[in-house]
Amino acid sequence: MEDAVDVEENKSPTRREFLSMVGAFGGAAVMYQAMGMMGLAQASPYSGPIKLGQAPAGAKVLVLGAGIAGMVAAMELRDAGYEVEVIEYRGVAGGRCWTLRSGDTYEELGGAVQKVDFAEGNYFNPGPWRVPYNHYGIIDYCRRLDVELEALIQINNMAYVHSTKAFDGKPVRYREINTDFRGHISDLLSKVTNQGALDEILSEEDKTSLLAGLRTFGALNADNEYVSGNNASGRRGYERAPGGGVDGAPIANEVMDLSTLLSSGLWSRLATSETLNSSMPIFQPKGGMDMIARAMAANLGDLVKYEKKVTKISQSEDGVEVIYQDMANGDAEVTTTADYCVCTIPFSILSQIDHDFARPLTNVISSMSYNSSIKVGLEFNRRFWEEDEHIFGGTTYTDLPISQISYPSNDYLSKKPGVLLGCYSWGATAYQFSSMEPAERISRSLDFGSQIHPQMKQEFKSGVAVAWHRVPWTLGCYGAWQDKEAQYQDGVAMDRRIVCAGEHLSYLPAWMEGALLSSLDAISRLHETATNAAGK
Amino acid sequence: MEDAVDVEENKSPTRREFLSMVGAFGGAAVMYQAMGMMGLAQASPYSGPIKLGQAPAGAKVLVLGAGIAGMVAAMELRDAGYEVEVIEYRGVAGGRCWTLRSGDTYEELGGAVQKVDFAEGNYFNPGPWRVPYNHYGIIDYCRRLDVELEALIQINNMAYVHSTKAFDGKPVRYREINTDFRGHISDLLSKVTNQGALDEILSEEDKTSLLAGLRTFGALNADNEYVSGNNASGRRGYERAPGGGVDGAPIANEVMDLSTLLSSGLWSRLATSETLNSSMPIFQPKGGMDMIARAMAANLGDLVKYEKKVTKISQSEDGVEVIYQDMANGDAEVTTTADYCVCTIPFSILSQIDHDFARPLTNVISSMSYNSSIKVGLEFNRRFWEEDEHIFGGTTYTDLPISQISYPSNDYLSKKPGVLLGCYSWGATAYQFSSMEPAERISRSLDFGSQIHPQMKQEFKSGVAVAWHRVPWTLGCYGAWQDKEAQYQDGVAMDRRIVCAGEHLSYLPAWMEGALLSSLDAISRLHETATNAAGK
Repeated sequence: MEDAVDVEENKSPTRREFLSMVGAFGGAAVMYQAMGMMGLAQASPYSGPIKLGQAPAGAKVLVLGAGIAGMVAAMELRDAGYEVEVIEYRGVAGGRCWTLRSGDTYEELGGAVQKVDFAEGNYFNPGPWRVPYNHYGIIDYCRRLDVELEALIQINNMAYVHSTKAFDGKPVRYREINTDFRGHISDLLSKVTNQGALDEILSEEDKTSLLAGLRTFGALNADNEYVSGNNASGRRGYERAPGGGVDGAPIANEVMDLSTLLSSGLWSRLATSETLNSSMPIFQPKGGMDMIARAMAANLGDLVKYEKKVTKISQSEDGVEVIYQDMANGDAEVTTTADYCVCTIPFSILSQIDHDFARPLTNVISSMSYNSSIKVGLEFNRRFWEEDEHIFGGTTYTDLPISQISYPSNDYLSKKPGVLLGCYSWGATAYQFSSMEPAERISRSLDFGSQIHPQMKQEFKSGVAVAWHRVPWTLGCYGAWQDKEAQYQDGVAMDRRIVCAGEHLSYLPAWMEGALLSSLDAISRLHETATNAAGK
Repeated sequence: MEDAVDVEENKSPTRREFLSMVGAFGGAAVMYQAMGMMGLAQASPYSGPIKLGQAPAGAKVLVLGAGIAGMVAAMELRDAGYEVEVIEYRGVAGGRCWTLRSGDTYEELGGAVQKVDFAEGNYFNPGPWRVPYNHYGIIDYCRRLDVELEALIQINNMAYVHSTKAFDGKPVRYREINTDFRGHISDLLSKVTNQGALDEILSEEDKTSLLAGLRTFGALNADNEYVSGNNASGRRGYERAPGGGVDGAPIANEVMDLSTLLSSGLWSRLATSETLNSSMPIFQPKGGMDMIARAMAANLGDLVKYEKKVTKISQSEDGVEVIYQDMANGDAEVTTTADYCVCTIPFSILSQIDHDFARPLTNVISSMSYNSSIKVGLEFNRRFWEEDEHIFGGTTYTDLPISQISYPSNDYLSKKPGVLLGCYSWGATAYQFSSMEPAERISRSLDFGSQIHPQMKQEFKSGVAVAWHRVPWTLGCYGAWQDKEAQYQDGVAMDRRIVCAGEHLSYLPAWMEGALLSSLDAISRLHETATNAAGK
């Protein structure tokens, strides 16, 4: 649920710009201080386990929601000595950190019920499914809680890129597009360099290095040309690959000509695995994403109260009061109180709950929309993508409404049924899919997928389709700000005794790491407030 | 033991050249036949389990050597109905497919003995350590023999590239060099495209596509410039990464200027994971590479006779006779016979054995040299590369004699000791390391490695160093031809009743897949010979 929001924008200042702003507004002393701090800055805002210090005696914190943000807050506040009570709507913890397994039942908004009929051991992550290496916080909690990670294959050179408008709708192997694009641009740049077009920019020495670099980078020949032959085939594939015995010698295949490559538009897929949140290495918890949620929930034990539906949140000078409907006990109305509260309820839900937040925060809560997403898990009787097409993990990208097909990065070579991500889309497509019954979402995914993998319909075994706008506990995939720049500090600011947290209050929206970092920042401020109040 | 030989050369013909040659020499009919065959050609010479058909009644094959080539031959010939006897020098099967574990003892040529002192469960692969996705043969045998594979992280954006001559010898994160090189070349090519330098080559439409492609590929801004900002930082890393709560907004870092980048020479590392044999996805057997050898040996059971040293190979019109020294029984001299023989003994060893091969093959055997390689496995008390530097799997490349440091792609986050590949070199460095005692190879690896990871010496626990020229059963890493083009067919040709097989008789030298493909080709021809002879 993350890719859609990995936007690339030039909005924030560079270090130099930042420092010069600091210098202009704060003078040299402040600037040098800022430089010193930045020299120590971590690449991630997470620099190891949070150290809150000691809670004020007898202080209690209510945590609303047992997703990643809520559970991180609860664990750390408990460890600091706070009395902690976590109120959760569902019967299990995790929120969007969610895994569906054989035997699970899921009822979406609108009443459609799906019974998951996967083979034993198979699973599907409707929400987050990846843990990038640079999400230090989530990785550290996995380490601390003994959640095992395994590599997820993000980029697979053997998987396809596919456009209905190119190559007669036939999929092309990723490695062919990747090699040919690198090759052709390296060839072009070499040509113009040799023609003197860069003489004013580059020294002779730089030109020599550039040409050598392009030769390696683009698989060029000794004349810095990108041509068919073993240089190119050693990356894009052969007509006959190097083998053994009598016919061992390879036969190269032919590279695509530049115009064919450019007009295909398939080069648009070549940066996907370059962005930090999607670049190698990237991981998944063994056995399903909710292994993280389960480990956190086990750590919290009976601090989490399940099947409690919050109906009212209010605060006074003395504390916070929350009323919930106890779904586990005949919907009895229960009132619970605390000194402070961390509210991780998504704003899509919170906006429908009776509360008395201050005006600025209320404005954020009521104006935040939640983007949609559709994910379809398809189980097949055999792993035809491995057996027939030599695709192990990774993703095929397509301009069809399913957007991508991602192959499982676990149980390689298994002879049992396998589950792949058969559709993962956002925006208009997600709305369309949301309006269908689950069975139709699945059959449409099979229709589209068959254009890439003709085996799909014959090998289909079962499926599950989650449209995030219909997920009862979030009503959407992730929070989208009306005007983030203007509203952000209103959203994250502590409102007297309550602070909100979650992916929606971060610059890593839709990622568990965003929820976690938001939570750690929120509880730091809550703790500071509580400590200051206690010290008075 | 493979990378050194993944040469990129333009030696073999392209498909078009090949077909035009076929047309010129064989006429149109042959050309069309060749085209048809090529249309069906697999990307790999391996297209599924070999189907030999039925062996002649009572036919026996001797297989010399229980490495990958020998065991593949033995399994398939047995399954076809041949009586099979495998003669192996060592006490275990696998040959270079070899894993060292805690408690193992290894005595190299020269007498130095190393006792492996790793923590329980840790291991080191002195020989092959990777199974590329395009090695269909090895992968299929893993499937058939239930050898579990897990992803090996080949490229790690967080690992380092390092040159003693650049950046004051400080390592740089791979993602910085990779992003900056892509960015700068895309920026340069955009500039000259906009200046009209490519007007004669590209149509207006192609130019538009090219500029759009470069913008994506190179993380350029809307003006197709590569500059510091969130576009670049979203790939190369931030000064302060996007986070949550109050200080959630990111601060970009600064890109390297082009001249610094070019003069660093570090761009030379950017194609390593593009070549087919090193590109993602790539795998390792869970628990060590020899899980493949073990599975094959288990499949063969008592067909393999261990600790037998072949001393003489001869053949007559009636059959093959092999004399071996039975090291398991007081070095008794034993003679065994068969109708045919598959000889997988490395030519480095075979050249020292009494044999009566025909002149052309003998010439190949005696003229083949074996290249050297050094691999050092280092065990540390903790996985500091993960805990301190956020490096999970993948490889750091350096111009130091250790050449690379590869981090384990298993047991991520483990709090127990971890083993990494601390040195993996060829050529002159391998010779230097071979001449040292094992302990010195290890201490030198630590000295060099400490220039990249200062924690190394403090965290060091134990190590093992394998110099392939001193490995008694191969005397080298892989076979190198004196003149492959001229000699190859002499090497692979069946000599009356004996055919040779192994990585040295393939175009995938040093790879298990080369050994396997060579073996399958060899036994196909052996079977054809045997069937023809029986049919007479």
